[in-house]
Amino acid sequence: MQFEQIIGILAGLFTTLAVLPQIIKALKTKSVDDVSPIMFITLCIGLGLWTVYGFLKEDLPIIITNGISFILNSFMLILSITSRSKSKNF
Amino acid sequence: MQFEQIIGILAGLFTTLAVLPQIIKALKTKSVDDVSPIMFITLCIGLGLWTVYGFLKEDLPIIITNGISFILNSFMLILSITSRSKSKNF
Repeated sequence: MQFEQIIGILAGLFTTLAVLPQIIKALKTKSVDDVSPIMFITLCIGLGLWTVYGFLKEDLPIIITNGISFILNSFMLILSITSRSKSKNF
Repeated sequence: MQFEQIIGILAGLFTTLAVLPQIIKALKTKSVDDVSPIMFITLCIGLGLWTVYGFLKEDLPIIITNGISFILNSFMLILSITSRSKSKNF
């Protein structure tokens, strides 16, 4: 495996797993009022586009990491909306 | 400009700007207890590696977007630590 592919997969692992601590924290505390859902909407659009970019470039690290990231961040987006206290704005 | 470069730049714009709503919310409310600093530590490591990956692949959209993302997310990481109520854990 080439050096750059290792860097790409490592980079993808870190950015893909990055949202997990936030998901775990939200599930534990049930408190997400300080978290911005607009951040996760924007992030999901971007990750979707990165996945398309990966297919166009036939670049596996980009496809896999951004595809998984899209799923995880969509889950956090749903959490950040459904667990919000009714009174709190976005 | 090629179609895939447009997708790459658009993808980069969305993922780069994604953290801005969270930064604005944190600066306005001064409340970040629900935000996970571990998410931003992991994200910064990943974005740093993606920037290295961009240099290795000589891929401008990846270098520019992940470099700027690294700076913005580092700022949010600092905010998520410095604005934390003393009592709250990570």
